[in-house]
Amino acid sequence: MTRDDAQALDAADPLAGLKAAFALPDGVIYLDGNSLGPPPVAVHERMADVTRRQWGEGLVRSWNTADWISAPLRVGDKIARLIGANPGEVTVADSTTVNLFKLAAGALSLRPGRRTILSEAGNFPTDLYALQGLEGLLGGRARLKTVAPEDLVAAIDEDTACVVLTQVHYKTARRWDLAAVTAAAHAKGALMLWDLCHSAGAVAVDLNAAQADLAIGCSYKYLNGGPGAPAFLFVAERHQGALTSPLTGWMGHAEPFAFEDGYRPAADIRGQITGTPPILGLAALEAGVDLQLQADPALVEAKGLALAELFIAQVEARAADPQLKLTGPREPGARGLHVSFAHPEGYALVQAMMAQGIVGDFRAPDIARFGFSPLFLSYVQVWDAAHALADILAERGWDRPEFRTRAAVT
Amino acid sequence: MTRDDAQALDAADPLAGLKAAFALPDGVIYLDGNSLGPPPVAVHERMADVTRRQWGEGLVRSWNTADWISAPLRVGDKIARLIGANPGEVTVADSTTVNLFKLAAGALSLRPGRRTILSEAGNFPTDLYALQGLEGLLGGRARLKTVAPEDLVAAIDEDTACVVLTQVHYKTARRWDLAAVTAAAHAKGALMLWDLCHSAGAVAVDLNAAQADLAIGCSYKYLNGGPGAPAFLFVAERHQGALTSPLTGWMGHAEPFAFEDGYRPAADIRGQITGTPPILGLAALEAGVDLQLQADPALVEAKGLALAELFIAQVEARAADPQLKLTGPREPGARGLHVSFAHPEGYALVQAMMAQGIVGDFRAPDIARFGFSPLFLSYVQVWDAAHALADILAERGWDRPEFRTRAAVT
Repeated sequence: MTRDDAQALDAADPLAGLKAAFALPDGVIYLDGNSLGPPPVAVHERMADVTRRQWGEGLVRSWNTADWISAPLRVGDKIARLIGANPGEVTVADSTTVNLFKLAAGALSLRPGRRTILSEAGNFPTDLYALQGLEGLLGGRARLKTVAPEDLVAAIDEDTACVVLTQVHYKTARRWDLAAVTAAAHAKGALMLWDLCHSAGAVAVDLNAAQADLAIGCSYKYLNGGPGAPAFLFVAERHQGALTSPLTGWMGHAEPFAFEDGYRPAADIRGQITGTPPILGLAALEAGVDLQLQADPALVEAKGLALAELFIAQVEARAADPQLKLTGPREPGARGLHVSFAHPEGYALVQAMMAQGIVGDFRAPDIARFGFSPLFLSYVQVWDAAHALADILAERGWDRPEFRTRAAVT
Repeated sequence: MTRDDAQALDAADPLAGLKAAFALPDGVIYLDGNSLGPPPVAVHERMADVTRRQWGEGLVRSWNTADWISAPLRVGDKIARLIGANPGEVTVADSTTVNLFKLAAGALSLRPGRRTILSEAGNFPTDLYALQGLEGLLGGRARLKTVAPEDLVAAIDEDTACVVLTQVHYKTARRWDLAAVTAAAHAKGALMLWDLCHSAGAVAVDLNAAQADLAIGCSYKYLNGGPGAPAFLFVAERHQGALTSPLTGWMGHAEPFAFEDGYRPAADIRGQITGTPPILGLAALEAGVDLQLQADPALVEAKGLALAELFIAQVEARAADPQLKLTGPREPGARGLHVSFAHPEGYALVQAMMAQGIVGDFRAPDIARFGFSPLFLSYVQVWDAAHALADILAERGWDRPEFRTRAAVT
């Protein structure tokens, strides 16, 4: 493929029009939308409206007049459309970590007598940490078991209350088959809880077609919700009411403004909300989700996988460095939208790219990671980034002391 | 006191200059800063800077270049100065509800063998709900006991792991003696956990002088942090390291970017952080806290109490309605900065005030509540509000059907 070929792909790209909905800085090729998506242009006016008009003029009245109180469910319903869920099955609340704690605890309570939560060794750390915290709190009543991915399905057994997996792995981009693993969990009577952090807004997800029970996800990656944007969670309608959260706060009460001393959970998805909803974060997130809803999820996935393939192919065709190794599957059907190359100088490599305005990120110990957000990237940008990477490798462009100085956040 | 007297108090008010730091809408007397503080003028530019420059231009790099990663501790250190805590003892994280869950669980782990968490019947519901959730999750290992406030100190015993109280009561404004109750808890070997939701930015709080162990609080009331702003928590330095959180997320790990499978808590206050920090909410909050730091806490408390006294005195002197009853203590030293009147038509009364641009709120079943934020209110405004309330009562101005139509949020 030549650069002209990439240009031809851009000319035929049905999603090319969405690029104008972002205002990325000049000279930047942004391959880290999988860590923090960029702001949609529309978010700036939304934030000004929320802070100046709704907060500044409406003041506390905006809980009613601007319907702040419904924001978690309203934005949740929009996210539901992106992940194959029905209205009323998704809410925005808390962080991914806290939501996982809530739903895993709820899953244990739905499977009395079973005590194992099964996950994958090397899953995103915060998922494992949240489950370890739950295990520690519950003493002998919960046990986190982690196994290698190839052993996972066979490890589901009659003691498994819940299987917790991240659909697309944060390092390798390896993608689990949502429907197949959910069916395997159900075959043993276990519930299935999916982490969609690297899926939502990236790969086409259909939770209900897969009969998934529970899901969580963050919204600051492909959903472009902003730094530390509030997370979302999904509870299949058939489990609502029965599955209760251990983090019981006033916004999850059946009648929050009755101010009763005793907790009575809302029987619907609201029962998973804890404290007062983060309105500023929700407003930014809604702008990102509204933009995402303009794109057909099947086209989003197809373009993202094509960009990733283009990147892999161009890098591998040109990169002369035998130390560079693709991590994770090569086949598009088995992966998500980011590409990770292991290299002993992975950190310096990412910094050398960054010095050229090509933003990726590093994941310890040796992964240079590049994400291919389909809404704002062009084929030519990806072609250019691949060639820049190949050039840096050929010239040992990473071999400078300043590229090895680790920042606080890598 | 005449209206001219109130004007004279304004002329002599050392905090009067701070009013210009807010841009409240014309025709509004805002007596609900105790529910949602108004935006400081400076917040608008801060938010634009965070969304346009830091997020839009810096993109993911801003975790380092704009030091987003330090925001929870940086803002926490600023809040620490308002509540008598030292640097490194406060962080911003999650919601009040979630923080209470974390710290109460931690308190139980610091007092093995004790299983009682003692609180006040009628405490703010989300506090009771969070503790009920913990109780439910821990089975027999935790027991929430609530007693009437007058019985509380006597109820602290050798099974009490932790006493959880809101310093200023959300309905009555009754204020607990921070040092005395903390000492009573310690005398029985219990830990003391204070909820400062109606204290921070309102009454002078000195956690370390009182030797308090733990505290939580919200930041969208007197700290003017914005709707649903992230909450804060305090862990006295002597407990850090030993007190671990059950909500273990990657941002509480000793080395978050090592991406280890096993959780190792940060030994300092960072160990209480769970997920990715909410940067937009933190930015708005920091503007509110920076403004608060310009005022001497003793002057803030003194003015707020004086405003509340003026309101009570003017209402009681003029209001001819025997059904109107002050709820909570009359003496300034025993109260916080809001005033609650019980009235059978409390809801309609608040709506009738609202129709005149005087914004208070209602707390079920019958409380009309008015808050006296010292940073932006004048004595004349409070004089006018008191007279408006008295006039409405005299004329049964609340007696209109539209004032009885309940909104979703009361």
